Amino acid sequence: MEKYVLITGASSGIGYETAKAFAARGENVIITARRETNLERLKKEINAEHPGVDVVIKVCDLSDNAAVVALYESLKEYDIKAVINNAGRGNKGGFTDDTLERDINMLHLNMDAVYILSSLYARDYKDVEGAQIVNVSSIGGYLVVPGSSLYCATKFFVSALSEAIDLEMRKGGHKLRAKVIAPTTTETEYEQTANELDSFDYAARGGFYFTAKQMADMLLELYDSDATVGSIDFATRGLKLSEPKHPHL
Amino acid sequence: MEKYVLITGASSGIGYETAKAFAARGENVIITARRETNLERLKKEINAEHPGVDVVIKVCDLSDNAAVVALYESLKEYDIKAVINNAGRGNKGGFTDDTLERDINMLHLNMDAVYILSSLYARDYKDVEGAQIVNVSSIGGYLVVPGSSLYCATKFFVSALSEAIDLEMRKGGHKLRAKVIAPTTTETEYEQTANELDSFDYAARGGFYFTAKQMADMLLELYDSDATVGSIDFATRGLKLSEPKHPHL
Repeated sequence: MEKYVLITGASSGIGYETAKAFAARGENVIITARRETNLERLKKEINAEHPGVDVVIKVCDLSDNAAVVALYESLKEYDIKAVINNAGRGNKGGFTDDTLERDINMLHLNMDAVYILSSLYARDYKDVEGAQIVNVSSIGGYLVVPGSSLYCATKFFVSALSEAIDLEMRKGGHKLRAKVIAPTTTETEYEQTANELDSFDYAARGGFYFTAKQMADMLLELYDSDATVGSIDFATRGLKLSEPKHPHL
Repeated sequence: MEKYVLITGASSGIGYETAKAFAARGENVIITARRETNLERLKKEINAEHPGVDVVIKVCDLSDNAAVVALYESLKEYDIKAVINNAGRGNKGGFTDDTLERDINMLHLNMDAVYILSSLYARDYKDVEGAQIVNVSSIGGYLVVPGSSLYCATKFFVSALSEAIDLEMRKGGHKLRAKVIAPTTTETEYEQTANELDSFDYAARGGFYFTAKQMADMLLELYDSDATVGSIDFATRGLKLSEPKHPHL
């Protein structure tokens, strides 16, 4: 049976590049996000470069709990070798700057979807050799940044959950690994979506940032490794692979 | 105008005792939870001991996002001096041990309700002298415990969010304070609810635990202090008041 890598938030940014990076290795991919046009474009790109790779499009609003459950149920026919929970976004930042509705949507997207897909996948695959979950957190999942209070709190959830699952699976002798990558500033639609802008120019703002492709390559480096956490070493601006970083029992 | 302290999860445990402790100081309280009978009992107890204290009952399922928003909207006539986000519960613990439905309910109760009430309160009261949010986290909000992965992740969210709000409010020169208490084992309905038992005997299990009243008294000690975090000092089994504990900018 052919194996597939499921990638959420594949319509742009790190998710888009991660799908391309797995496809470049010959891995079949299931790509999901709300924007079907972008997924179609990604599928065409992959088909053109890697004709042997199967690309399955699943349109899903990952901020809708029931839709995420239905998404997973719709994948029962596939053998899923990894789940990359990449979908997520920021908000206007200041604790009372955004609307309640947009903030709640962010909670469900950044946290509930990660929990739902991790949990359903773990139920089915926890004793399958090679099975992996890679969750995309943020440096804000390890460092509280006033001015990004709610976003950071969602990412603390993601990093703590991922590390906990990995520790729990290893303790229990299960084969499933759970990993977490903590990007720093990356040129994606992050700023545009968080602030509801038409566009955002990372280069014009200045400061150091990664491209989405660089971050996707680091995600695959973490995927290939035996580490639990991939974070950014500020001194070298490279990936630092490590054991869980939060204090743990 | 009379002032009120809003306490969520007041039907039992730390919430019940916190309501009594504020009432004993002569503070009016708004008590909310699902179980109306328990809230009625609490109101009768307070009325008997402190006849001058006004007790307002609000029945609310705090795991329902829309109900939490409606709860806050229904309180617009009150001058709220503090919000105590105490409502929360555990689950069966092992990452795949509980049902998806119960786990999602826990995410919405432990995190969304805390966010919604903190955010709506901050929008209205961030420049009001003495305004406070006290969120009930857990030692599991600072320490990843494999075997309680999802519960700990929800509490990491609560502790990171609370610390972030407090840092942000202080940086911005606002008067609102946000604080977080991180209890260790406390004799409440925690084990019973988490594991769907008819009852649970903390004394029979052995090991050190606090009574709900002891923990409520510590919560008020944090409330009275200038600290952001109240955690348990294992050496003295007493409350340790401190600045934010997670790394922060």
